[in-house]
Amino acid sequence: MQRLIVDMDGVLADVYSQFRKYEKEESGINQEPHAIIGKKEGEAYKNVRIYVNTPGFFLEAPVIPGSIEVMEQLNREYELFIVSSAMEFPLSLYEKYQWLQQHFPFLSWQQLVLCGSKKVVSGDIMLDDHFKNLDHFNGKTILFTQPHNQLADPGRHERVNNWKEVAELLLPQW
Amino acid sequence: MQRLIVDMDGVLADVYSQFRKYEKEESGINQEPHAIIGKKEGEAYKNVRIYVNTPGFFLEAPVIPGSIEVMEQLNREYELFIVSSAMEFPLSLYEKYQWLQQHFPFLSWQQLVLCGSKKVVSGDIMLDDHFKNLDHFNGKTILFTQPHNQLADPGRHERVNNWKEVAELLLPQW
Repeated sequence: MQRLIVDMDGVLADVYSQFRKYEKEESGINQEPHAIIGKKEGEAYKNVRIYVNTPGFFLEAPVIPGSIEVMEQLNREYELFIVSSAMEFPLSLYEKYQWLQQHFPFLSWQQLVLCGSKKVVSGDIMLDDHFKNLDHFNGKTILFTQPHNQLADPGRHERVNNWKEVAELLLPQW
Repeated sequence: MQRLIVDMDGVLADVYSQFRKYEKEESGINQEPHAIIGKKEGEAYKNVRIYVNTPGFFLEAPVIPGSIEVMEQLNREYELFIVSSAMEFPLSLYEKYQWLQQHFPFLSWQQLVLCGSKKVVSGDIMLDDHFKNLDHFNGKTILFTQPHNQLADPGRHERVNNWKEVAELLLPQW
């Protein structure tokens, strides 16, 4: 069974919805989605570090559409681990555990890894929205499209734009 | 630089001191240290699962003698990661982060991994007190003596009894 490493923020959890919501609450401005394409999170939302350190930010993040159904099937076909860079925002640690339990109850606590750097995890396939995680990985690498990476050349990584494309790539019988 | 994976509970953090303290507070009995040799934690302390889920259990654990000085030097000579099985006790996640910051301030958040299973981490050397973690590891494996493993044959793993022996093994110039 191949080991599949799946990222949380920007792949399972829709953190951009939260960024937009927090920004709107703060400034009253409803941001146009296209305005942030190609910008890093910190450029697109100047108070992003305050947002991610706010209790509830991760716990109340919506689930990215299609991820639950596809993950349920991937969990049968792969040795699945959820690996999230959470240590920079340590208050998020327990929220991330709770969020996963709530939305992906078919995953067990044995399958969750909260780390600082993802360099230390090994596997056959990694699905992530950040180059900094994919670039270090020694297996097949899949880039999940998010505004911050939308204009970048994926290079050696395969790009997927949604969970339907993840399923088509990783579940041949889908 | 070789990657060294170091466990937290029973290697850096003296959880047995906490077990004894909690047991004494509960029963009034001062347990003889030799009485628990060769017993798993759950056999030695019947309420261990209650103890580890008590707020403060991990945060107030003493540091195992010698570990700070040796770790400070290991951090210069190795690519060092602290990997702790914390997900079974999710309330411990933030306490473990805080404990490490407090006692090992020379380590950064990038070096901490809190997981369920350690199967997903890779490295050259692993130092741990549990066979279940060492047995899966593809590099050099070092068993740190704790009462639960004290009578066991270390098998392919090298046994160390204290941090002086860790230094002698991993820091030739010590």
